[in-house]
Amino acid sequence: MNPYLAEFIGTFLLLLLGSGVVANMILPKTHGNGGGIMGISTAWALAVFTGVVVAGPHSGAHLNPAVTVGLGITGQFDWALAPGYVLAQIGGAMLGVGLAWLMYKDHFEEEQDPATLAGPFGTAPAIRNNGLNFLSELLGTFVLVLAILYSTGAQMEDSNQTPIGMGSLGAIPVAFLVWVIGLGLGGTTGYAINPARDFGPRLMHQLLPIKGKGPTDWGYSWIPILGPFTGAALAAGLYLLAGV
Amino acid sequence: MNPYLAEFIGTFLLLLLGSGVVANMILPKTHGNGGGIMGISTAWALAVFTGVVVAGPHSGAHLNPAVTVGLGITGQFDWALAPGYVLAQIGGAMLGVGLAWLMYKDHFEEEQDPATLAGPFGTAPAIRNNGLNFLSELLGTFVLVLAILYSTGAQMEDSNQTPIGMGSLGAIPVAFLVWVIGLGLGGTTGYAINPARDFGPRLMHQLLPIKGKGPTDWGYSWIPILGPFTGAALAAGLYLLAGV
Amino acid sequence: MNPYLAEFIGTFLLLLLGSGVVANMILPKTHGNGGGIMGISTAWALAVFTGVVVAGPHSGAHLNPAVTVGLGITGQFDWALAPGYVLAQIGGAMLGVGLAWLMYKDHFEEEQDPATLAGPFGTAPAIRNNGLNFLSELLGTFVLVLAILYSTGAQMEDSNQTPIGMGSLGAIPVAFLVWVIGLGLGGTTGYAINPARDFGPRLMHQLLPIKGKGPTDWGYSWIPILGPFTGAALAAGLYLLAGV
Amino acid sequence: MNPYLAEFIGTFLLLLLGSGVVANMILPKTHGNGGGIMGISTAWALAVFTGVVVAGPHSGAHLNPAVTVGLGITGQFDWALAPGYVLAQIGGAMLGVGLAWLMYKDHFEEEQDPATLAGPFGTAPAIRNNGLNFLSELLGTFVLVLAILYSTGAQMEDSNQTPIGMGSLGAIPVAFLVWVIGLGLGGTTGYAINPARDFGPRLMHQLLPIKGKGPTDWGYSWIPILGPFTGAALAAGLYLLAGV
Repeated sequence: MNPYLAEFIGTFLLLLLGSGVVANMILPKTHGNGGGIMGISTAWALAVFTGVVVAGPHSGAHLNPAVTVGLGITGQFDWALAPGYVLAQIGGAMLGVGLAWLMYKDHFEEEQDPATLAGPFGTAPAIRNNGLNFLSELLGTFVLVLAILYSTGAQMEDSNQTPIGMGSLGAIPVAFLVWVIGLGLGGTTGYAINPARDFGPRLMHQLLPIKGKGPTDWGYSWIPILGPFTGAALAAGLYLLAGV
Repeated sequence: MNPYLAEFIGTFLLLLLGSGVVANMILPKTHGNGGGIMGISTAWALAVFTGVVVAGPHSGAHLNPAVTVGLGITGQFDWALAPGYVLAQIGGAMLGVGLAWLMYKDHFEEEQDPATLAGPFGTAPAIRNNGLNFLSELLGTFVLVLAILYSTGAQMEDSNQTPIGMGSLGAIPVAFLVWVIGLGLGGTTGYAINPARDFGPRLMHQLLPIKGKGPTDWGYSWIPILGPFTGAALAAGLYLLAGV
Repeated sequence: MNPYLAEFIGTFLLLLLGSGVVANMILPKTHGNGGGIMGISTAWALAVFTGVVVAGPHSGAHLNPAVTVGLGITGQFDWALAPGYVLAQIGGAMLGVGLAWLMYKDHFEEEQDPATLAGPFGTAPAIRNNGLNFLSELLGTFVLVLAILYSTGAQMEDSNQTPIGMGSLGAIPVAFLVWVIGLGLGGTTGYAINPARDFGPRLMHQLLPIKGKGPTDWGYSWIPILGPFTGAALAAGLYLLAGV
Repeated sequence: MNPYLAEFIGTFLLLLLGSGVVANMILPKTHGNGGGIMGISTAWALAVFTGVVVAGPHSGAHLNPAVTVGLGITGQFDWALAPGYVLAQIGGAMLGVGLAWLMYKDHFEEEQDPATLAGPFGTAPAIRNNGLNFLSELLGTFVLVLAILYSTGAQMEDSNQTPIGMGSLGAIPVAFLVWVIGLGLGGTTGYAINPARDFGPRLMHQLLPIKGKGPTDWGYSWIPILGPFTGAALAAGLYLLAGV
């Protein structure tokens, strides 16, 4: 599979499932209404798992411009591919959230509160505070990218050091990382930790004819973009300094 | 083990456990009453895991006619075996849901609401809408089959490329896929994503002497059959177009 | 490690953690009070995981007389060792539940209801019905033993077919089986699915000076013994008939 | 990476995520408020996972002075490194909890109850009882260290017995152990099971300008230090006696 297509499909799966779980947990009359933070954090983690299973062998499954930047800084990714990766990630995120909205459309129409209607799209801070919201996105992404950089596949320690690809099981560690970041560091801003995951859905909130929606919160939109990039750069820098 | 028997036993386990968890979570006076969507989605995922552990090495553990169709389209399954597989899946589903009903019979008899009494059998839409319900089943199965097609076992990347079978651990990825589909895409129709899982139990709802049951909802029954087949076909088509 | 000691320690860990989680979820003033069926089923699954991690390489980690009988019937275990295994399992279960009680003693003393006080010891039916309670224990153990018999470790499919021990990761499948049995089939009787797990704690309920306890329910005690043995025998029989 | 730095970063990650999840679950107005014991126990388990993924190949990822002591007693760790390990663990824990506090600062300021404000720092007993609180910390750590000592990596059982490193998947077993210890044995004292995890945060509670905080509970602080060390020593002793 073409790596750009892999990024597109992987990020599409991430947002279809991730936006879907927020809709399922918070919109009225769904089968999953009320599943709360355990439902949401588990599903986002496994949404990453799903995207990595499909895209992993074809693009490395970044699914996240901050991961792309982190791997670029450490020299594990060719910068020339980065623009295409990021565009594919944003496009996939837009399609995923769009289909999640369409699928849950009847449940959106049962809801009147604009904040709830915006829930399955971009993230929003629980308490607005530019500095601390930025710090939250920075820290969550720092943990994600640092742990990805230090993650290792199975290694056969024989004389030839031939690596063993772990297949789809190899997607479990990144899912567990996203799970714990959601539970531990998601309480303040809703853990975008991924510029494409936030920007694409925010743009779709602007574009889609969502009945009763409020204005799209563009004033907040720079935080889930610059916070993750800063966190990824710090993680990459620490990785380069601390050594493998 | 004979592959048809494996499909029968695997789908039996899937429905015994899956129908059982719905009974446990929604019927009165059970030890698990009130476990909600986390309990239900976790158990359905692990019910698939259990079926795959038992049937995997013997039939490939489809346990689902949509998976059979998806693998048939991509040329990974011999169409001549498909009728036997599907019959075994439906039969296993019927036996599984029948024993779950028998086991929870005292709890069924504590319940009066026909909709709750039908809960452990076929799926039902949260908000009835043929188009969007069909889309929901299509999307859920599309994600399932696409990710199965791109799932890979562990590979030893030496010169001989000898594969390593992962044993029962290899059943984890499909369980995680079903978990996230339930959480993310199960809110509208209850994610049949499997014609046998819906039709067999629906038929048992019709046949069993369930005290206080309402009419079996056959008008809805085509959606959890055609939606999954369509989603599986689209996933198989994308797989063929996008390449491995 | 001596295999009997391994069974003793493994079953001790199972009951210390398993009885502990019931105490944590249902007794007053604990940090985990109210965690419900997800907390209980997750912890019992991981309690089995813990016991298998420790005892697995030394005794095969049966931790359950029904598993011992199942493996004996299929010829995978030497019957001569069975009495020692079962005694070690019962003894380990007694010590585990005893220490769990001691540790949670202040919380037991905050509770007056005899049924709640008995919760961390033997199992009790949600609705008493000898036939269906027996069926419940039979079905749960049937699923457990059948899936264990068909579980497989990682295999290197080269010419020598040398197996790869999966180490502690190999304990995950049995934990997932126990998790789903608890969620799906635990709603009626509380899924003993293990004669030692029920008998040892029930005896401790009789022996320990638990303030405010009611009479030990010995009238029910045969069901979580004979049900599991019957289920295990049926699973072993099916395994022998259906073939590997 | 330098092993002391690895311990520092690993324990930093453990406390950032672990203190973070307590803040997220118990402080007002967070996105995760009300996630309860499942959220807390899942996240602490995966916080250990994250620390082990990063630090594992570089320091063995003790992240816990009781683990350091346990491995020292069994001869699997050079005592000369122990002081540096423990200092790094305490320092990392202090930085982690400090950043978690800063990140959740607005939510701390919405809370008035001193006990709740202290929740994301050191542990506190649900019912104060020196003997039983000590026993609780002893038992939890005993289980942790015993299971770590008996945990095994994947082994290729060929003539050369070359081990296969499992990469980041190898961090799963210790995470599952911490998960079940939290659920089963965390109800009484909140399962410090780690002197650095308790002492570092307790010191930060003293030092940080937390608005409305009560006095730091130093009278309890010896229990989550001596209990874990005693449990680890007993586990190491049993391991030496029982044999591998």
